[in-house]
Amino acid sequence: MDEFAIGVDLGGTNLRIAAVDGSGEILDCVDTLTQVSQGREATVARLTDAVRFICHKFSGTHKLLGVGVGLPGIIDLEAGTLHSAANLPGWNDYPAREDLEAKLGVTVILENDANCAALGEKWLGAGRDVNDLCMITLGTGVGGGFVVNGKPWHGVLGMAGELGHMTVIPEGAPCGCGNHGCLEQYASAGAIHRLASEAADSGRSPCLAQARLTDPELSARSVHTCASTGDAAAIEIFHAVGKALGIALANLINAFNLPRYIIGGGVAKAWDQFSPSMFHELHERSIVFRAGEQAKRSHRSTEVTPALLQDRAGLLGAARLPMIMCGTKCRNSMVS
Amino acid sequence: MDEFAIGVDLGGTNLRIAAVDGSGEILDCVDTLTQVSQGREATVARLTDAVRFICHKFSGTHKLLGVGVGLPGIIDLEAGTLHSAANLPGWNDYPAREDLEAKLGVTVILENDANCAALGEKWLGAGRDVNDLCMITLGTGVGGGFVVNGKPWHGVLGMAGELGHMTVIPEGAPCGCGNHGCLEQYASAGAIHRLASEAADSGRSPCLAQARLTDPELSARSVHTCASTGDAAAIEIFHAVGKALGIALANLINAFNLPRYIIGGGVAKAWDQFSPSMFHELHERSIVFRAGEQAKRSHRSTEVTPALLQDRAGLLGAARLPMIMCGTKCRNSMVS
Repeated sequence: MDEFAIGVDLGGTNLRIAAVDGSGEILDCVDTLTQVSQGREATVARLTDAVRFICHKFSGTHKLLGVGVGLPGIIDLEAGTLHSAANLPGWNDYPAREDLEAKLGVTVILENDANCAALGEKWLGAGRDVNDLCMITLGTGVGGGFVVNGKPWHGVLGMAGELGHMTVIPEGAPCGCGNHGCLEQYASAGAIHRLASEAADSGRSPCLAQARLTDPELSARSVHTCASTGDAAAIEIFHAVGKALGIALANLINAFNLPRYIIGGGVAKAWDQFSPSMFHELHERSIVFRAGEQAKRSHRSTEVTPALLQDRAGLLGAARLPMIMCGTKCRNSMVS
Repeated sequence: MDEFAIGVDLGGTNLRIAAVDGSGEILDCVDTLTQVSQGREATVARLTDAVRFICHKFSGTHKLLGVGVGLPGIIDLEAGTLHSAANLPGWNDYPAREDLEAKLGVTVILENDANCAALGEKWLGAGRDVNDLCMITLGTGVGGGFVVNGKPWHGVLGMAGELGHMTVIPEGAPCGCGNHGCLEQYASAGAIHRLASEAADSGRSPCLAQARLTDPELSARSVHTCASTGDAAAIEIFHAVGKALGIALANLINAFNLPRYIIGGGVAKAWDQFSPSMFHELHERSIVFRAGEQAKRSHRSTEVTPALLQDRAGLLGAARLPMIMCGTKCRNSMVS
């Protein structure tokens, strides 16, 4: 009997549940909304209903390994508790593992959403051929995840991968975390919106001012379009994105010398605009990156590359969790 | 029969060889000079003579596990070759493992000296109670080493731990590596010498100008003495040391969230002078460090602490290598 696992990607907006087989093929997927306003219990009920629905569909032909759940925010992995998540108000201190295991009767493995994305890319994406990687996700904020020896790296407090709050400009823009000059203040969609609004307000960029008429949020996509048509202010914004990313990556590469650093998230679609500045900083600032370039023929270089799985990385990584973490200890008798 | 291993700490100045038992006790130690001016062959002959001398002394009572050798510079661990070391001119591309194994007839394990120090502190020093740690050594330059899951972490190119070249001030002082604002430009004995000389030249510090009469090199020790007597310029230098260290550590903690970060090397003796600024930056810049402080009762905090083994860390770490890396594959029949 073939095996499969269920992956759950629970975000502040979207809730997705998929059955995935050992080769990474998505057998079935439920794509719905989290609808935080309806309260936690309603979301959890929709989640467990979808898991049961999918399970029953495959119970005759496949053996369930377990359920992996990717969550935003700070998770106490030992206790199986969601400590807090900015995008899930009312979910603080939710004993997710215990609650979901009681409701489903199968093994549930929690994981930080950024680590899920990193694990997804390791399994089926831009990190397929390596065992150790770092993934930086450029979304509304900047998230980070590490895979070490093929598994998510959590750190002593489960808080490894807070790459959005690495200091890149010590006296730079203030950040909500209390620091100044965090990577997130330069390389996130939020930062791009802030910098683009400033440019539009100042009159420096007719293109961005025009774009704001149809896209009041000035998304990274709109700024990218302006940059692609040669708007100097928009180009400068992606230059700042690349410079900040390059400083952070140079530090990460000098420290850990992993074989692969993967850039994902919506902003990564502007790769053509920010990557030249990023690589310029990397070359200047990382002796380890340069040494890797020289050693390229021996396949021991450090590569910085765009993500491949787009928004399915987290879902696939969540489904991968039971496959690599469970062993024979998983419970797989579904509670109907 | 008790087991023992031999550790070799080969630096640009000192060459030390010790027999160490499984509990970390140094059974015997040869402390000599590298004397690079006499050429590589002379140093290697002294090294192998000392290893043989120690081995024969214990051959009747102890079983040799192997020889661990800590080397400065860039090592190709796969090939067992010392690629290059600034402090060992004439040693470039030296096939150290092959040569030493042929001469000694026992298993030889090479390791970067900074990783040896980290492993020594993990075994017997400030990291005894953890499996994962980072060590920053503040010497003439700034070195770094990681222990992950109890073993040295090398990175894909064997160059992990280049922490001295992490960018802390993007537009800061130029560094020999080609970057600007490297940690090494603020937190090494070399940087302290540079900053102290500038202060003495400028007339801002009568204390440092006076100290230079008896210590032309203006060592970290002399600057520490001036700072301890209240000299404002000397105090400011250690403030810069602490600030740079704090920025680098905040980034490392946000990224990997290891349980222990250890500060060693000669400059670490000025802990009282630089650590307040260091912890100030850490509190301000690392949400993970702050979360760890709050979780202290649950023993999951990230601690930043001075090294305990001083200049024996590298020697003990080198001796530890055969104990954790060899398994049953070591050869231990000494060639006389």
